[in-house]
Amino acid sequence: MKFDILKKDEGSRARAGSIHTDHGIIETPIFMPVGTIGTVKGIHQKELEDVINADIILGNTYHLYLRPGIDIINKAGGLHKFISWDRPILTDSGGYQVYSLSNNRKIKEEGVMFSSHIDGSKHFFSPEKAIDIQKNIGADIIMAFDECTPYPCEYNYAKRSMHMTHRWLDRCMVHMKKTEGLYGYEQCLAPIVQGSVYKDLRKQSAEYIASKDADINAIGGLSVGEPHEDLYAMTEIVTDILPEDKPRYLMGVGTPANLLESIALGIDMFDCVLPTRNARHGLIYTNEGVINIKNSKWAEDFSPLDPELGIETSTRFTKAYVRHLFQVKELLGPQITSLHNLSFFLKLVREARTRIIDGTFVEWKNQMVVKLQTRL
Amino acid sequence: MKFDILKKDEGSRARAGSIHTDHGIIETPIFMPVGTIGTVKGIHQKELEDVINADIILGNTYHLYLRPGIDIINKAGGLHKFISWDRPILTDSGGYQVYSLSNNRKIKEEGVMFSSHIDGSKHFFSPEKAIDIQKNIGADIIMAFDECTPYPCEYNYAKRSMHMTHRWLDRCMVHMKKTEGLYGYEQCLAPIVQGSVYKDLRKQSAEYIASKDADINAIGGLSVGEPHEDLYAMTEIVTDILPEDKPRYLMGVGTPANLLESIALGIDMFDCVLPTRNARHGLIYTNEGVINIKNSKWAEDFSPLDPELGIETSTRFTKAYVRHLFQVKELLGPQITSLHNLSFFLKLVREARTRIIDGTFVEWKNQMVVKLQTRL
Repeated sequence: MKFDILKKDEGSRARAGSIHTDHGIIETPIFMPVGTIGTVKGIHQKELEDVINADIILGNTYHLYLRPGIDIINKAGGLHKFISWDRPILTDSGGYQVYSLSNNRKIKEEGVMFSSHIDGSKHFFSPEKAIDIQKNIGADIIMAFDECTPYPCEYNYAKRSMHMTHRWLDRCMVHMKKTEGLYGYEQCLAPIVQGSVYKDLRKQSAEYIASKDADINAIGGLSVGEPHEDLYAMTEIVTDILPEDKPRYLMGVGTPANLLESIALGIDMFDCVLPTRNARHGLIYTNEGVINIKNSKWAEDFSPLDPELGIETSTRFTKAYVRHLFQVKELLGPQITSLHNLSFFLKLVREARTRIIDGTFVEWKNQMVVKLQTRL
Repeated sequence: MKFDILKKDEGSRARAGSIHTDHGIIETPIFMPVGTIGTVKGIHQKELEDVINADIILGNTYHLYLRPGIDIINKAGGLHKFISWDRPILTDSGGYQVYSLSNNRKIKEEGVMFSSHIDGSKHFFSPEKAIDIQKNIGADIIMAFDECTPYPCEYNYAKRSMHMTHRWLDRCMVHMKKTEGLYGYEQCLAPIVQGSVYKDLRKQSAEYIASKDADINAIGGLSVGEPHEDLYAMTEIVTDILPEDKPRYLMGVGTPANLLESIALGIDMFDCVLPTRNARHGLIYTNEGVINIKNSKWAEDFSPLDPELGIETSTRFTKAYVRHLFQVKELLGPQITSLHNLSFFLKLVREARTRIIDGTFVEWKNQMVVKLQTRL
């Protein structure tokens, strides 16, 4: 996996680059739509390709492991073939959902025992198991198995957890080398910086991760409820330490404003359920601010949903129509808003990339973050 | 509204024709997807145009009247503009849903008093009101206000009801002429034959309707639970009487086999929720028979959903993948199967048309009805 930096911004740490994978090029900064259980909710694969223009999508290891199960994905020839997606896929390690969704989870040095949130069946994830599963899924980018600490988190817990995450990383790296990829293309492992909201821990963790010389480095344990100042402060400390010549992935982030601010701090990759989850609740993002389409103020607004975005649905359909679809709980409502929001997120990072290249990023970013946080 | 018959089949009453409307040509025989509340469930308008190739869709007057309400549709400039659909629209009269969905309905000579199934609010539909609402909706084809008798239905009730439906038709026709269309294009009124499963009543009703010389004639009160033999027997009696030079619309029908048999009896237009409702339950139609995609037998079947249909999703995605989507209750499952089933229904009537034109309809139909009823 090769990372080329095309341009570094002079007014910030932002960079425009390209990650070369065996499934194609990812132009950075990039936002990765979350394809939880083998589908980006409400979106056809063709729409991801032709409308949203997603260079890469995410899969959730925990969900895919439980359903359809690794056996079926393996028999299909990997997740790309199973879901018919031939661009890159990144999978998380499964850890995050084990902590947030499953019952009776017990975290020990060896790994995590947990019960399925679906049928209560018992399962065990370890660093080695997480690598095996992700290799079988066939992710282009495999995430190290970590503990994502909650917020708030006591200092001593965060410190002990961080050290365990580092030891787990070493086990992941050893195990990663033991077996070949199953499907004939390169799969790389991305380690994750932890340390909660504590500067010294973040610094220590970033130094440890940097020392591993991985192809991609990730920052985890943020966007879990902490104030935005903490998110930015931790990101800044970490991007100062992580190698400049490798892509940096800020996990689970975030709002459009979060994206732009984090790009300015040197982040290259993002993922978040926000655009699709909020879309299903009728919240849409525009260049002028956020619209709650369920609001009665849109009931007789026959202007296009968002003519600026430049996608067919958002130009074609009016706010009044999309509001109606939500009022009557019709599937087409979330279909339209999900398509809209993901297109918006992708267009935003593409615009950031263009601005970095032409040297107008910071000025544009500072104007945009104000508008993006406006409620319409 | 003009109807051209291009070809009459020699081995049956089937015909291939074209209905000319101000919103474009409808090639018959045609299946009309049901766009209940201003949306064909789970389907983008662009998919209706480019993938399914629907010449016309339906709207339900009862649903649209309650939500978003006629006022908003009127302010939008009619349903075509409100939902962004510029091909023809047919609306039912609202009667069917009043009888099947609403509470406390009271049918009198003047009209029907009913309570909304949504909030219990009281409303009154009469022949005149049904015409006014449909004119405001802006349907190209307006259905007469009738009573759709249930099955089974006592002879005397069916007879009294049929006569009332005839009187209501007269009131619809008088009222239809009283006002101009609101949106500058032609709107035509289609009367409905009733008479339950009684031959003499069907004959009498068909003669009454035929005498009105309407642009389109419809057959209602079938596909409400009666045996298929009754459906076909009543259809045959009625098509024998309804004018040959006008399109005949069999309301609420039906399965793929029902469509082909009814085309052979001289029917030109169909609508039914079957393809979309069954799609949402994982039932898909193919040339080889019906597939319940939820069945465990498809769990590891990595062959395309249906390569013969020739639409991208059905060629691209495997049975195993679509089954998985239903297992995990993901939106994309019903999106794919709805697109599939509607494409299948439209392709089937298009093929019937081609067969009528080239003179191979009956032979093809007889082979198809066997295959179409196979369970795979």
